Amino acid sequence: MAKHRHESGKGVKSKGGEAPRRQAADDDTHITALGLEAAPPSDAMAAYFNKCEEKLGFVPNVLKAYAFDMAKLEGFVAMYNDLMLAPSGLSKLEREMIAVAVSSVNRCYYCLVAHGAAVRGLGQDPVLGELMAMNYRAAKLSPRERAMLDFAVKLTAEPWAVEEADRAALREAGFGARDIWDIAAVAGFFNMSNRVASATDMRPNPDYHGQAR
Amino acid sequence: MAKHRHESGKGVKSKGGEAPRRQAADDDTHITALGLEAAPPSDAMAAYFNKCEEKLGFVPNVLKAYAFDMAKLEGFVAMYNDLMLAPSGLSKLEREMIAVAVSSVNRCYYCLVAHGAAVRGLGQDPVLGELMAMNYRAAKLSPRERAMLDFAVKLTAEPWAVEEADRAALREAGFGARDIWDIAAVAGFFNMSNRVASATDMRPNPDYHGQAR
Amino acid sequence: MAKHRHESGKGVKSKGGEAPRRQAADDDTHITALGLEAAPPSDAMAAYFNKCEEKLGFVPNVLKAYAFDMAKLEGFVAMYNDLMLAPSGLSKLEREMIAVAVSSVNRCYYCLVAHGAAVRGLGQDPVLGELMAMNYRAAKLSPRERAMLDFAVKLTAEPWAVEEADRAALREAGFGARDIWDIAAVAGFFNMSNRVASATDMRPNPDYHGQAR
Amino acid sequence: MAKHRHESGKGVKSKGGEAPRRQAADDDTHITALGLEAAPPSDAMAAYFNKCEEKLGFVPNVLKAYAFDMAKLEGFVAMYNDLMLAPSGLSKLEREMIAVAVSSVNRCYYCLVAHGAAVRGLGQDPVLGELMAMNYRAAKLSPRERAMLDFAVKLTAEPWAVEEADRAALREAGFGARDIWDIAAVAGFFNMSNRVASATDMRPNPDYHGQAR
Amino acid sequence: MAKHRHESGKGVKSKGGEAPRRQAADDDTHITALGLEAAPPSDAMAAYFNKCEEKLGFVPNVLKAYAFDMAKLEGFVAMYNDLMLAPSGLSKLEREMIAVAVSSVNRCYYCLVAHGAAVRGLGQDPVLGELMAMNYRAAKLSPRERAMLDFAVKLTAEPWAVEEADRAALREAGFGARDIWDIAAVAGFFNMSNRVASATDMRPNPDYHGQAR
Amino acid sequence: MAKHRHESGKGVKSKGGEAPRRQAADDDTHITALGLEAAPPSDAMAAYFNKCEEKLGFVPNVLKAYAFDMAKLEGFVAMYNDLMLAPSGLSKLEREMIAVAVSSVNRCYYCLVAHGAAVRGLGQDPVLGELMAMNYRAAKLSPRERAMLDFAVKLTAEPWAVEEADRAALREAGFGARDIWDIAAVAGFFNMSNRVASATDMRPNPDYHGQAR
Repeated sequence: MAKHRHESGKGVKSKGGEAPRRQAADDDTHITALGLEAAPPSDAMAAYFNKCEEKLGFVPNVLKAYAFDMAKLEGFVAMYNDLMLAPSGLSKLEREMIAVAVSSVNRCYYCLVAHGAAVRGLGQDPVLGELMAMNYRAAKLSPRERAMLDFAVKLTAEPWAVEEADRAALREAGFGARDIWDIAAVAGFFNMSNRVASATDMRPNPDYHGQAR
Repeated sequence: MAKHRHESGKGVKSKGGEAPRRQAADDDTHITALGLEAAPPSDAMAAYFNKCEEKLGFVPNVLKAYAFDMAKLEGFVAMYNDLMLAPSGLSKLEREMIAVAVSSVNRCYYCLVAHGAAVRGLGQDPVLGELMAMNYRAAKLSPRERAMLDFAVKLTAEPWAVEEADRAALREAGFGARDIWDIAAVAGFFNMSNRVASATDMRPNPDYHGQAR
Repeated sequence: MAKHRHESGKGVKSKGGEAPRRQAADDDTHITALGLEAAPPSDAMAAYFNKCEEKLGFVPNVLKAYAFDMAKLEGFVAMYNDLMLAPSGLSKLEREMIAVAVSSVNRCYYCLVAHGAAVRGLGQDPVLGELMAMNYRAAKLSPRERAMLDFAVKLTAEPWAVEEADRAALREAGFGARDIWDIAAVAGFFNMSNRVASATDMRPNPDYHGQAR
Repeated sequence: MAKHRHESGKGVKSKGGEAPRRQAADDDTHITALGLEAAPPSDAMAAYFNKCEEKLGFVPNVLKAYAFDMAKLEGFVAMYNDLMLAPSGLSKLEREMIAVAVSSVNRCYYCLVAHGAAVRGLGQDPVLGELMAMNYRAAKLSPRERAMLDFAVKLTAEPWAVEEADRAALREAGFGARDIWDIAAVAGFFNMSNRVASATDMRPNPDYHGQAR
Repeated sequence: MAKHRHESGKGVKSKGGEAPRRQAADDDTHITALGLEAAPPSDAMAAYFNKCEEKLGFVPNVLKAYAFDMAKLEGFVAMYNDLMLAPSGLSKLEREMIAVAVSSVNRCYYCLVAHGAAVRGLGQDPVLGELMAMNYRAAKLSPRERAMLDFAVKLTAEPWAVEEADRAALREAGFGARDIWDIAAVAGFFNMSNRVASATDMRPNPDYHGQAR
Repeated sequence: MAKHRHESGKGVKSKGGEAPRRQAADDDTHITALGLEAAPPSDAMAAYFNKCEEKLGFVPNVLKAYAFDMAKLEGFVAMYNDLMLAPSGLSKLEREMIAVAVSSVNRCYYCLVAHGAAVRGLGQDPVLGELMAMNYRAAKLSPRERAMLDFAVKLTAEPWAVEEADRAALREAGFGARDIWDIAAVAGFFNMSNRVASATDMRPNPDYHGQAR
């Protein structure tokens, strides 16, 4: 991403001069629309934020959004890290693919940006992230990946209609009982996060946009 | 609830003899369709299950469903207890009303049964639980309650369309920034739980049905 | 249902004192929002209301709602009794199951309360009523019951898409031509009643709530 | 309508010879797909069918469809005639406009054909029938007509969302309590009839197509 | 159509006197709601309008609507004539059937009127036009026609879900690669035209209504 | 975009070794799934393709997809260039914003990729392209831009409900009659193109992905 230009973009002359330069499209005046003040960090969370800075170069805004209350932040971090990073029959890339396909149904800007970057990076395939965000049905997927995403997307769009036949399709694609739980839990988690982000107008760190393009 | 009859109901003669007695409608052969074996309980979780038995007379099936993995169970319990029981500008009843109204959109059998009972009990009004499960718009609600549920239900049904005007409606109904977070977080949480329950065919403890009628 | 408490509930102190007691959630100030005055009863209808009082202990509010015009009341009673009580290849319980599953799609408070009670009673299974109201797909049903409800629910949600294949599925489940008519007619009838009830804010008799729990 | 051509149309050579003549699009091999045999007519119904022949030149197929059971036929006729023909604050044309607008939402072929003809005839405006069947929002309507159809169509498409504000809009357009009942009852009735017709593949009498063009 | 009556209909006394005569339902005060002034016609377009007058007796209003800008009019005419009239594996009637079935999903008054007339005329079957406009699933269609319309309607209603299996169904019904393109292109074109017409309140020429009845 | 890696990506070892490298997600084995052979280019189109190569470095795949038939290709190019490049009250960027917001509703992979790149480039704001593709409601837009996109998106999602009030909102935002036509025409055009692309599995040139990041 042309990062520098973005930062100083307001007021720049337009290309070809056809119209005055529009304002930047992202909203960098807040992390959420609620303006909740950060609580004093617990030791664990202070250490975790430091680790984020070291590894990613920044603290993901979702963590700053939860930081007004340490109990909520610690609960979120614990659940997130278990779901997305702990050992599982699903690869980390598969879990991120679910995250983005679910966020696409819910059209969640924050999660599409942050987890789209993760898919691009983990998949070593920049186009895969675009496909998950735009329409996973257009991607060239293995039968296993397709079954996994069909389940996650149906569970997102019409959870009331998920039944034994849907679980059977996962089993036929090679997923075990524990894997089915993990697919459901990751899809469920992003159905939660998408809504917290949309409800609060949570804005993604600009750093994500240019990653792994 | 006519509990005893339910337990021994299979094979009982039909009323009026017009048709052979049908099987019981609930499925008490499993807690979820996945059949995951419980892991050895951590000390904290063993104590927590004991506390449930003492206070409720049973361990809610959702906890047994997560008990195949202590990290997942502890993460779920921590987040649930913080959201539903910790101090908040929302009363416990209000949080349970959100839980049921959200679960009604998603038609989640487990959550409607378990949290419908909570609304009946906390509200000291058996009919309130029915209304939240059936159609919250038919209930006689205060403007505050109505605004809260309108937000939670829109966030569930079309999260992509929630915008500043929706937050403004909550502020006008007297909710502060922290309260808006809590409404979003509770609504988000049940959008997660509804999907984990539906994906796994989670069955509610039969004890809920007769509570606070 | 804790009936007495409900009746005198307004103003009672809240449990645990966490918040002032909310108003009762049901609206017992009217039968419908239209306030139409009852017409002088015809002999037939006077006798029918007496029979209701004897058998049920009360006159269902839907009948009182229609009582502003004897021609309309008699037409409704004739059609209702023929559909729900006359001999049919469908048992009375099956007809009530259709009524509740249809009313669940339409989220009709009146019909879910009144016919949910009927399913609980006729089915001798309190949980069956809950399942029909919440999500019939979560119930343990016979193939016959499932086919019947799949047809009725599709006919409710997308009537334009019902075709020969849907009728064939009923025939395969053992239903004859006359039975198919009856399934369609009962589903159709509640698609009518749900809308009359929702349009007029019709309130169910409180007596239903506690029946057959 | 080019009636004669329709009747003998199968096998006729195509215009311009570009393709072999297709079969006729309507299905005149049955009245419904169920093939239920007519019951011996009651005296009242025999007289009613004669009256139809005299006044319309034919017996509407919906009546023949119900004629397998005199109790059902008589119940349907009584309710229909009361709703559509008895004195009401709504004109007959207004009631037929509701019938067609509701049937358009439900895409019911039978009712669109039969009641589209009624709107064309009663309205002395052939185009009005087309507009009700295609998209009532495109018609030049009085505020009263528009309010009436907005209510009927919302009640058809999302009955759960009809509330006091919707009734208030009717009152503001000049409708009284009894009129609101009639709008709801006519809209409700066609939500029933549309579904009985779609469920049974009921076919309209061909005579309707050419009426009042 | 009773054309003369329609033209002079405003203010005529109502049939049976039950209510004052309503205004005509169509809006003949404009071609579109935008009121764009016609540009000086190019030679080609002047000739084309003359040809329309000769062959149809009138210039279709959609052409008059585009006539504010000759480049736009010529582009529209070129694409339309290629799609609907040039040689293709689809007959002209089949292309018009797609036009109407697509316009029915989008409830486009202009296109349903104009292309409904075309189906009635080309099909030599007045009822076929009604069926395409009301619900193509109710028509007696060949397997080829049904497959073609199922594809066009799915492509209209949920384009994101069209996949290889949908193309395979067309191939199985005998369509080649070029035919599939033509089905997609005609369905696509009317998804465009429907929206231009609805966005501008485009009104059909009254002449269409009575054609080929 | 890491273009070289993408091209040779199949079979590369996975990052961190957690799973075997998946296939590339895009499908570069075809331009569309139909495999139509290119027709001999007309002089005009040969020149146009050369111009594309010069200015863009490649011929957009949509043009290659239409190249099986010169009449269709020339019609498409004429309409496209008039709509997107000819003088208009809408800037080129505004027209591309409509293109992407419409394609987002329809989840069209081809158009989101190709026109997302155009928005990033013309807007000199890489994030603006992401926002249009993900959820335009999350973007910081001028009232004019927001009104324009609200109209285009409603016209895409529910064209039957667009009425005078929607046009009035555009006028209030400063758009004239000719501008309203252009908004409708661009939105309509992409409702066509999205469907042709989805129907044929059209694949975007890989070059777009890395442009203007």
